[in-house]
Amino acid sequence: MTQTTTPEQQQTPQVRAEELAQIVQGELVGNPDIILSTLAPIEAGGPGALTFIRAQNFAKHWADSDCVAALVTKGVEVPDHNPDERALIIVDDADIAVVRILEMIDPGVAHPEAGVHATAQIHPDAEIDPSAKVGPGCVIMKGAHIGANTVLMANAYIGGGSHVGSECLIHPGVVVGDRCVMGNNCIVFANTVIGADGFGYLPGDETRGAIKVPQIGSVEIGDDVEIGACSTIDRAKFGVTKIGNRTKIDNQVHVGHNCIVGDDVLLCGRTTLGGSATIGDRTMVGGAVVINDQARVGKDVKIAGGAIVLDEIKDKQTVLGVPAMPARVALANVAAQRNLASFCRKVEKSLKKLDPDFKPPSA
Amino acid sequence: MTQTTTPEQQQTPQVRAEELAQIVQGELVGNPDIILSTLAPIEAGGPGALTFIRAQNFAKHWADSDCVAALVTKGVEVPDHNPDERALIIVDDADIAVVRILEMIDPGVAHPEAGVHATAQIHPDAEIDPSAKVGPGCVIMKGAHIGANTVLMANAYIGGGSHVGSECLIHPGVVVGDRCVMGNNCIVFANTVIGADGFGYLPGDETRGAIKVPQIGSVEIGDDVEIGACSTIDRAKFGVTKIGNRTKIDNQVHVGHNCIVGDDVLLCGRTTLGGSATIGDRTMVGGAVVINDQARVGKDVKIAGGAIVLDEIKDKQTVLGVPAMPARVALANVAAQRNLASFCRKVEKSLKKLDPDFKPPSA
Amino acid sequence: MTQTTTPEQQQTPQVRAEELAQIVQGELVGNPDIILSTLAPIEAGGPGALTFIRAQNFAKHWADSDCVAALVTKGVEVPDHNPDERALIIVDDADIAVVRILEMIDPGVAHPEAGVHATAQIHPDAEIDPSAKVGPGCVIMKGAHIGANTVLMANAYIGGGSHVGSECLIHPGVVVGDRCVMGNNCIVFANTVIGADGFGYLPGDETRGAIKVPQIGSVEIGDDVEIGACSTIDRAKFGVTKIGNRTKIDNQVHVGHNCIVGDDVLLCGRTTLGGSATIGDRTMVGGAVVINDQARVGKDVKIAGGAIVLDEIKDKQTVLGVPAMPARVALANVAAQRNLASFCRKVEKSLKKLDPDFKPPSA
Repeated sequence: MTQTTTPEQQQTPQVRAEELAQIVQGELVGNPDIILSTLAPIEAGGPGALTFIRAQNFAKHWADSDCVAALVTKGVEVPDHNPDERALIIVDDADIAVVRILEMIDPGVAHPEAGVHATAQIHPDAEIDPSAKVGPGCVIMKGAHIGANTVLMANAYIGGGSHVGSECLIHPGVVVGDRCVMGNNCIVFANTVIGADGFGYLPGDETRGAIKVPQIGSVEIGDDVEIGACSTIDRAKFGVTKIGNRTKIDNQVHVGHNCIVGDDVLLCGRTTLGGSATIGDRTMVGGAVVINDQARVGKDVKIAGGAIVLDEIKDKQTVLGVPAMPARVALANVAAQRNLASFCRKVEKSLKKLDPDFKPPSA
Repeated sequence: MTQTTTPEQQQTPQVRAEELAQIVQGELVGNPDIILSTLAPIEAGGPGALTFIRAQNFAKHWADSDCVAALVTKGVEVPDHNPDERALIIVDDADIAVVRILEMIDPGVAHPEAGVHATAQIHPDAEIDPSAKVGPGCVIMKGAHIGANTVLMANAYIGGGSHVGSECLIHPGVVVGDRCVMGNNCIVFANTVIGADGFGYLPGDETRGAIKVPQIGSVEIGDDVEIGACSTIDRAKFGVTKIGNRTKIDNQVHVGHNCIVGDDVLLCGRTTLGGSATIGDRTMVGGAVVINDQARVGKDVKIAGGAIVLDEIKDKQTVLGVPAMPARVALANVAAQRNLASFCRKVEKSLKKLDPDFKPPSA
Repeated sequence: MTQTTTPEQQQTPQVRAEELAQIVQGELVGNPDIILSTLAPIEAGGPGALTFIRAQNFAKHWADSDCVAALVTKGVEVPDHNPDERALIIVDDADIAVVRILEMIDPGVAHPEAGVHATAQIHPDAEIDPSAKVGPGCVIMKGAHIGANTVLMANAYIGGGSHVGSECLIHPGVVVGDRCVMGNNCIVFANTVIGADGFGYLPGDETRGAIKVPQIGSVEIGDDVEIGACSTIDRAKFGVTKIGNRTKIDNQVHVGHNCIVGDDVLLCGRTTLGGSATIGDRTMVGGAVVINDQARVGKDVKIAGGAIVLDEIKDKQTVLGVPAMPARVALANVAAQRNLASFCRKVEKSLKKLDPDFKPPSA
């Protein structure tokens, strides 16, 4: 199996359906000799295209798909399958099988050369594990620590006294302020800033401008955390801003000072957490959500994209809307809002007839 | 005509109204000897100030304007014009005439010196056109290609196997990940990140955390594309995230993995596209819009700022609101919402009188 | 008093309550010998923890608090205080006293070494005050000026002809475009971009794509301004985009071209100002607010998080909602919206009974 990746088209290596079934430990139903060379969504496809049928509602597209093989989650019935022409590969979980294939063909990220690049600036009192790679233009300040096998790609900045664990991948332009801590096995994408000052001021009055509240705390990031590009995680006023283990944060997310984000949390793109907000373990937050200063979001919560959370969401709730409410109520309200003008017109018309004293607000 | 630009005030060179009329191929109505030295909005102005009257509704401000000359779109009637004191210059399109003047006096962007700066790090297998300028601190990885006359200002990073076309201007701190493609004549502003991983995980459960789905695809950007500062365009899971020709993207925009954005699209500041969203040609998207994962926006659509697009917008529609709806309905609903509390109070009062069984929800 | 700061825990130096009362010029009510070594919120605390009681509503938590001392704003009554065991320190303003303590123990930001780092690239026609520190990888272009005692930490870019005042702190990766001006005593956090082009195009039509309007203006930032990480302040089309004195801007804020932001303004995280918007002095703007192109916000206005400002907000108003409305009306409307579906159902039921002609829009 050779590995070919061009910018024009990501390709799986050429592989026979039978071989692939073995690789993903699946059961082949169909032609073992079909050649697979690319992955595609079920509506797209073409010669050599492998797709996936993760659940029953995908199966109906198989008949019309131009894909020649599919990974199918065990238990899903796929109608109109002609095993002479195409191949199904039955696996425990089609999504996980796809991940395994992607991992196999992932070309990986280009690294800088081993060791510390000649143009990187390392303070003599910083501690760089000999197995770490520090790329060109990186700056590592006094007392900082870089763990084993960690890679700083280029032009990254690690502040004084900060600690980056082992097996981390720090993309170009990442800035980690002073005295922050990152666990092991983390990925931080380009131009993200960890440890800028929290936005804390005593409001001004007639006699003076706003007074800056020194932000002397730090940021503490757990293990196996991933943070997207151009995100910001502010340091605490005092104490720590905390990101739990295995939590994944998308691009352009803002986490305010003193937030406590639990383990296994997902924060989607452009979501904002105001200062001192807390988010419980395993909570999933959609894109462009706003979580107010001081708000308390429980564990196992799901928050739909675009929601604004004002104060508190209890464990295990699914919420949406502005302000965020339990999904059932919020969806009914959204439906009512869609017809609001028409509803008001009809109610006005009827009440004017029934009640001579009724005056609508627009009148 | 000398070119003078100071930080305090952008000035056009001093030019007589008659000369300017020639430059923009316009017809002079007024005093040919008026000296013009600056551009200003019609409500501002002052000695030497040239303004523009692009459409009829601007013309009424001319009488009270302190500007001494105006570029006027042909067909617009300008009342109260005294041709002895001031000058109108009639052109086919006042907006385009202003652009031509701005182009003429544009001081341009300061470039690094010709060639590759001594502190730039270029992999021996990267290909840099001899006419390109690569500024200090830039890092260009293995197999990357930089086209003719392209300028990388400073501290930019071009990943392994990535291709930047000719005549591009890459501002400081831009990061292009591995295996991405950018066409010719593109501008990318500072600290934008192209090709960070898409945000793709299989959700965790009781037994394990979220599983990262490798994002092995790339980003493909057309010709004549402009991308603002601190924006992020994620690479595809597999295949490509695509930005069409002549599309313009503002600051802090996020384009998720596998999005397909057409030609001639405008995306205003802080707009977010979820994964696999598509946007048709010539669509204009306002600021801070959220376009859901998988949403399909047609061609020639207009989406007002702050809208949330949930699923589908057909060609040529103008939409706004949360969720986005056709403008006529949405505006009527917004008007109804503005009076909602008052409306509800009055309806309740009336119905309590008419119907003894009526119980409002707040009761 | 030794200064100890570890990444794990920010500590105040150990100090006796009596000493601290002297430092903050407060009156001690309680045990003078209590040892204080850390700051904590009133609900948290533990041995050595000092908290603050800024207003009456905090005082009720003192009885159950594990903190051993509190700074109390004069006039607040604190029930259940046992002066043998714990200490209250009465001050004019507890918030200001906390700020003074934080300032005292603030470890500060790690600076680069004095002078210009060997890897920084300074154009021979740039002017760097001898007292300034220019860290590794910084690039300073022709005609730029860096004032006295200003610090550029690392990998920052100062464009041609730009002016940075004295006593400024420019964090890593900040990019200032050409011909911008920054006053004295400003702080700019990492990866923020000042002076990218405004987003200005003449819309395309059938015959051609959008035409870029050259953005030849600049950005002018006053004294004592603070700008968070990953924010963007665009240059003007012509003239200036202006940020007033003492204005504080959070992370991921976007200020469009030609905006005029007054003195003493606060812009919280992820707020967006469209082109040519104006904001008056002392106005406070919450997080994730959208202020439309051309909108005019007065002085002393308060805008709640998540609001969308369409056109004009007069001086001294407090507004919220989408679109932003005076708080009293908006809150009543939000309350009505929370019950909207239920309200509509009940009104429909009642009107169907009373009026045989009534047909709800959902019917």
